[in-house]
Amino acid sequence: MRGVVTRRRVRQIRDGATAERADDLVAEEPMEIRVDGARVAVTMRTPGADFDLALGFCLTEGIVDDPDEVATIRYCPDPGMDQRYNLVDVRRRTALPVEARLRRDLPISSACGICGTASIDEVRARGGDVSADPVVVTGPVIAALPDRLRQAQRVFARTGGLHAAGLFTPDGELLCLREDVGRHNAVDKVLGWAARDGRLPVRGTILMVSGRVAFEIVAKGLVAGVPVLAAVSAPSSLAVSAADAAGMTLVGFVRGASMNVYTGAHRIVGTS
Amino acid sequence: MRGVVTRRRVRQIRDGATAERADDLVAEEPMEIRVDGARVAVTMRTPGADFDLALGFCLTEGIVDDPDEVATIRYCPDPGMDQRYNLVDVRRRTALPVEARLRRDLPISSACGICGTASIDEVRARGGDVSADPVVVTGPVIAALPDRLRQAQRVFARTGGLHAAGLFTPDGELLCLREDVGRHNAVDKVLGWAARDGRLPVRGTILMVSGRVAFEIVAKGLVAGVPVLAAVSAPSSLAVSAADAAGMTLVGFVRGASMNVYTGAHRIVGTS
Repeated sequence: MRGVVTRRRVRQIRDGATAERADDLVAEEPMEIRVDGARVAVTMRTPGADFDLALGFCLTEGIVDDPDEVATIRYCPDPGMDQRYNLVDVRRRTALPVEARLRRDLPISSACGICGTASIDEVRARGGDVSADPVVVTGPVIAALPDRLRQAQRVFARTGGLHAAGLFTPDGELLCLREDVGRHNAVDKVLGWAARDGRLPVRGTILMVSGRVAFEIVAKGLVAGVPVLAAVSAPSSLAVSAADAAGMTLVGFVRGASMNVYTGAHRIVGTS
Repeated sequence: MRGVVTRRRVRQIRDGATAERADDLVAEEPMEIRVDGARVAVTMRTPGADFDLALGFCLTEGIVDDPDEVATIRYCPDPGMDQRYNLVDVRRRTALPVEARLRRDLPISSACGICGTASIDEVRARGGDVSADPVVVTGPVIAALPDRLRQAQRVFARTGGLHAAGLFTPDGELLCLREDVGRHNAVDKVLGWAARDGRLPVRGTILMVSGRVAFEIVAKGLVAGVPVLAAVSAPSSLAVSAADAAGMTLVGFVRGASMNVYTGAHRIVGTS
């Protein structure tokens, strides 16, 4: 298994002057996820927390409905296979047919055709409604999360190449941080950790992500029961609509003491 | 068809004070791509340049080998279907069976198992080798690209929520810019534009992207013949390995007069 950082020589140009030196790069490797022997996805990921990623992916994509269904998660057991750490095998207690569903292949079933409303309905049908979660969070706690996320990121400082996702308590205590070259993977790793730790649904928590928020990040959070999602950058229109429909609090542009609350503002207290 | 920006009320918190105001959000909607009637992908995208996206996706993912195979690209012709602009139908002159291949489902066929080397071999087998491209570019031209990209971005300034990709001449002239909520989509739109304009392979050009560079961005560029790929942020290890194997110049962290040249440094001239 390779590390999460690799070193490589790079030519640096600084104000017209050139120098050769060694530089750290974030590692990226393909990982195949199998469920009961059937390939369900190949994702490009940063090695590390691979079992969290496999379980989180299966849960948030609706391939496995409940972590209790899972009997074992292990790397490819074939010792004759090279790179066996790039294949993670999820076995359920009762093997069921697996519908090979892949990221970005949403099963749009609405009679009206393919549209954002159908996508939102699909997520809500999978249990994603957090309207009843009574958690409240203060603005200063939210404002402090980006710094806490960055301080806890071990690899980012060296490579600048990683997305991060972190799960926090309402007081701003970090429960779990995961990094990955892929934004979705970082979220899957955090939610897979929560599943393996018996914490689903993750009521009363804040999920903080390092970048932008598109629909799929909101959808993943909703399936895991996240009531508050915060991000350093902008959400998309469909992300906001989905959060709104499912009772999730969505906060974007968390920078310094400023932020934009797009939905569920009743959960953000302590501001005038 | 909705616009690329939607307005929505948002609660802004600034140093403890709260205000409600209207804010612009980048639009995100699902788009289904069909080839000869078969669904090959559903991608979450920002509406606009949809035909570029459909063709670029089909080419860079290896679903269609040559733009000349394509007879027509059109929106769903069924007037009874709502949201018909979210379905783009690509028809080939000769309909062939479509292997439903989706993003992130790389057909890893190496006998040695799933690994980065197999992923690189797969891209090179699809024609992605640009070693012979003689183009050279000066450091100052590369350094000027991020500003040119941002100046040409119409939506980003309003929403802060969009990735951009731009195709430039070796002198830094912008040939095509596309924006999207998805990083891959922005690249697909640019390369799809090039295909529709009869410019494939896009020899002698620079592809500039606004964010980080993971393997799939390099892979898409290689399939389209891009010899120089530049990015504002960091590349991954596999992105660098793939660029190196296929003779592509890969430049990262283009900021001010500084940049890192990871591969193909012989094409970057005019520095000491």
